[in-house]
Amino acid sequence: MKHRTLTVGLVQHTCGEDRDANLAATIAGVREAARQGARLVLLQELHTGPYFCQHEETDYFDRAETLPGPSTDLLGAVAREHKVVIVASLFERRAPGLYHNTAVVLERDGTIAGKYRKMHIPDDPGYYEKFYFTPGDLGFEPIDTSAGRLGVLVCWDQWFPEAARLMALAGADLLLYPTAIGWNPPDDAAEKARQREAWITIQRAHAVANGLPVLACNRVGYEPDPSGHTEGIQFWGHSFVAGPQGELLAAVGEQAAVLVTEVDLARSEAVRRIWPYLRDRRIDAYQALTLRYRDPR
Amino acid sequence: MKHRTLTVGLVQHTCGEDRDANLAATIAGVREAARQGARLVLLQELHTGPYFCQHEETDYFDRAETLPGPSTDLLGAVAREHKVVIVASLFERRAPGLYHNTAVVLERDGTIAGKYRKMHIPDDPGYYEKFYFTPGDLGFEPIDTSAGRLGVLVCWDQWFPEAARLMALAGADLLLYPTAIGWNPPDDAAEKARQREAWITIQRAHAVANGLPVLACNRVGYEPDPSGHTEGIQFWGHSFVAGPQGELLAAVGEQAAVLVTEVDLARSEAVRRIWPYLRDRRIDAYQALTLRYRDPR
Repeated sequence: MKHRTLTVGLVQHTCGEDRDANLAATIAGVREAARQGARLVLLQELHTGPYFCQHEETDYFDRAETLPGPSTDLLGAVAREHKVVIVASLFERRAPGLYHNTAVVLERDGTIAGKYRKMHIPDDPGYYEKFYFTPGDLGFEPIDTSAGRLGVLVCWDQWFPEAARLMALAGADLLLYPTAIGWNPPDDAAEKARQREAWITIQRAHAVANGLPVLACNRVGYEPDPSGHTEGIQFWGHSFVAGPQGELLAAVGEQAAVLVTEVDLARSEAVRRIWPYLRDRRIDAYQALTLRYRDPR
Repeated sequence: MKHRTLTVGLVQHTCGEDRDANLAATIAGVREAARQGARLVLLQELHTGPYFCQHEETDYFDRAETLPGPSTDLLGAVAREHKVVIVASLFERRAPGLYHNTAVVLERDGTIAGKYRKMHIPDDPGYYEKFYFTPGDLGFEPIDTSAGRLGVLVCWDQWFPEAARLMALAGADLLLYPTAIGWNPPDDAAEKARQREAWITIQRAHAVANGLPVLACNRVGYEPDPSGHTEGIQFWGHSFVAGPQGELLAAVGEQAAVLVTEVDLARSEAVRRIWPYLRDRRIDAYQALTLRYRDPR
């Protein structure tokens, strides 16, 4: 089988309150990735600002923007200038009082190729996302681009094999996760290690289960909790790219970084020929996957 | 939350043509696990004989046995003697010409607690299982025992997140995989490493996705291909136990081994409180999981 190489870039950085500075970091990263040959660049979740969901504050809805809007205009121009597809992650204001956590895909000509609204919304101490984000209503639909059919999902989605599977069944060439995940500083080192390892493991497993490359781009740095109720979040970085057997192709650590690597899209079909899970799924016996729980009768 | 400790044992060994010798190895392993305190013992897939699916041979159906039958009688007596629950894996003769790859759970009093017929059946060079095994028709139903509600699955099932999820939704306390997987000897070291790592990764991910411990018991040793068409299979062992964050609790290498470790079943609920995936599954958007493929309209 012939190689079909795609060079991808991931931009991992810190974020603060200064939106322009955050976007400058993002754009510098896109430029560097493009310089190294990337045709597809994945950004981290909500990269225009701090992770504001650490507490519930109605004023924070002012951070949301329309789509299209100022960020897609700016990032579209960057995509066009560098001739790269960009997967951005924005706080979408859809209507007064109706907001989403939305990934927007910008084509290399600067147009909007499509968007994905985060379907699975977390809510646990320090991550009060159910207050801010209405669950997505666009389903699990890949977005066609010049860099392939992109199975874009967002952060919490990464813990749900169902989401990855539905993207694969719809013909995604790659799975992409903009994400913002970190540690609760008081947790001990063993718990921190388990959490980060679980995060890497389950995303590599989506690659395995579906015979697809996986890109995960996380933020880094410490961000305080403005409410003072918790000790903030230490975002753990470790953005990575895995191949269709879950093998790590490239990964970075806990510093700001631009990760550029090649992915051979032709390997997906080669791997699926030896591991043909799509052939063998017991679709006659999966109905209960649409239940909340299979309660005892 | 209080600890609720269960000591589990996994018996990993080689298998040859001598059924009595294979069962003697199994029983010695069960005894050793019980001596070390195990209350639940998981055996490898099809542990009474060699992995006969390396080629298609009608005479091999003679290896199948009824359930109950001689192996469940023998293993039931062992379960009763050592007061352990045993998860066995047998070639079931259900009717003339109708055979299954079936896991049988023996209660500590020697009775049969339940059985699971392998739902996903592989077929690739060296693993001609679709010839031998009729796909299971009992669904994904955990089996209640004195050691917990067991989500027993078999080998190829381990690559399907759907199977693990359906067991979790039905209240499984643990996921258990008897398995027989190995390398094609001509593959290079990098491919072998990717395969074994993928196998470990995806099963650890089932633990993560479902907040459940996972036990995987694989066979070891080289078994030639009786047909001479291939270079046989080098079974890779590496049986392991993972906790509900996918963390490795215990693992062995490529030698015959009895692996005994403690699992704290109470951790599952603690983990699910911080990672409440069952709460957030988008069951309104999962209908397409019962499709073979989401073909373009």
